[in-house]
Amino acid sequence: MNDILTRVASVIESRKIANGGDPQKSYVSSLFAKGDDAIMKKVGEEATETVMAAKDARNNMPKSKIVYECADLWFHSMILLAQFGLTPDDVLNELARREGISGIEEKASRKKTR
Amino acid sequence: MNDILTRVASVIESRKIANGGDPQKSYVSSLFAKGDDAIMKKVGEEATETVMAAKDARNNMPKSKIVYECADLWFHSMILLAQFGLTPDDVLNELARREGISGIEEKASRKKTR
Amino acid sequence: MNDILTRVASVIESRKIANGGDPQKSYVSSLFAKGDDAIMKKVGEEATETVMAAKDARNNMPKSKIVYECADLWFHSMILLAQFGLTPDDVLNELARREGISGIEEKASRKKTR
Amino acid sequence: MNDILTRVASVIESRKIANGGDPQKSYVSSLFAKGDDAIMKKVGEEATETVMAAKDARNNMPKSKIVYECADLWFHSMILLAQFGLTPDDVLNELARREGISGIEEKASRKKTR
Repeated sequence: MNDILTRVASVIESRKIANGGDPQKSYVSSLFAKGDDAIMKKVGEEATETVMAAKDARNNMPKSKIVYECADLWFHSMILLAQFGLTPDDVLNELARREGISGIEEKASRKKTR
Repeated sequence: MNDILTRVASVIESRKIANGGDPQKSYVSSLFAKGDDAIMKKVGEEATETVMAAKDARNNMPKSKIVYECADLWFHSMILLAQFGLTPDDVLNELARREGISGIEEKASRKKTR
Repeated sequence: MNDILTRVASVIESRKIANGGDPQKSYVSSLFAKGDDAIMKKVGEEATETVMAAKDARNNMPKSKIVYECADLWFHSMILLAQFGLTPDDVLNELARREGISGIEEKASRKKTR
Repeated sequence: MNDILTRVASVIESRKIANGGDPQKSYVSSLFAKGDDAIMKKVGEEATETVMAAKDARNNMPKSKIVYECADLWFHSMILLAQFGLTPDDVLNELARREGISGIEEKASRKKTR
């Protein structure tokens, strides 16, 4: 199951206009056709929706909504990464690097000094 | 490398107060101690920073900043998931389900009708 | 010019479905018809666009875009206020209260201790 | 009461470092000292908090929290405007222009064609 991000990234890549993606048929291609700003806006939008789903889950709505919105958030993050020639592996490597060097505690100290 | 999300989720889980996490020593534990709102705010905040990094990358700043901020965004998403007893696997399963049923095109049609 | 917020709030009020607003003809009425979540999402979305416009202004784009997006942000904030029976005067009173009691410095100390 | 925005903008202006603002004493000055990114982040952050307050108001929390967070959002928007040499009057003029030309309906048609 762990190669899901890689597979999703591969589908996203195939949706780029340069790779034959058709904005009339594919939502992802239509975002690539619109360009940077449309993609960035979606990342901000899906983050707001994730927060709203979390609030709803504290108000008797199903927690599955959080999963659904978080999937949307990660999915659009991956479109943003692809737009800049980056991949989810770059993000995973960064997460591993942080853990590898000094553990999550490292993040703590770094953030706490902000 | 693909089990990184699982390992990070495991570290996050161990930082919960109920699991012995110490808010004085761990940034993640301090977020858990603050609770829902502090965690949700971070998800919104990191999304904004991801968008800012993408804008910067179009203005001669390194693309690595996008990777860095996206790692922050995913990391804090995972803290939010943990706060609600959810895991990154739930999100990956949702992404796989969308792909499995009808491909990313399904998302297109769904979203386009919104 | 200073009663602009009041006038805009009055137009927004008249667009409520209960006040005869028509979702087919008015964008504001269509937001009211969709309800809470649609309105909240717009506030998040316009904030992201304001930040993007500010980044663009540092990359040779006109500063007028910041004004335009900030107007969108305030406009949708006012729709959110109206949705909850609140007005821009409530917000202005709150801003005045903060200034009145102890000046903007008060905000400083409050925020700094967060 | 309607000159509150002007008065707040004037206080913000006086907090600029170039105008003698002291980052050690004033929260606003400390934001100006940090610069663009810190100010932009606050706009995104306060928008998320406004949305959270609106969700809370549907879950038995007082509506005054929406007013409070919206005041924070507008206040930080005004710091962003000041950072770019803009004022709340620029935003009010834009809101009036939209209303003047063709009413709020104009916004509807514009947005609906997006």
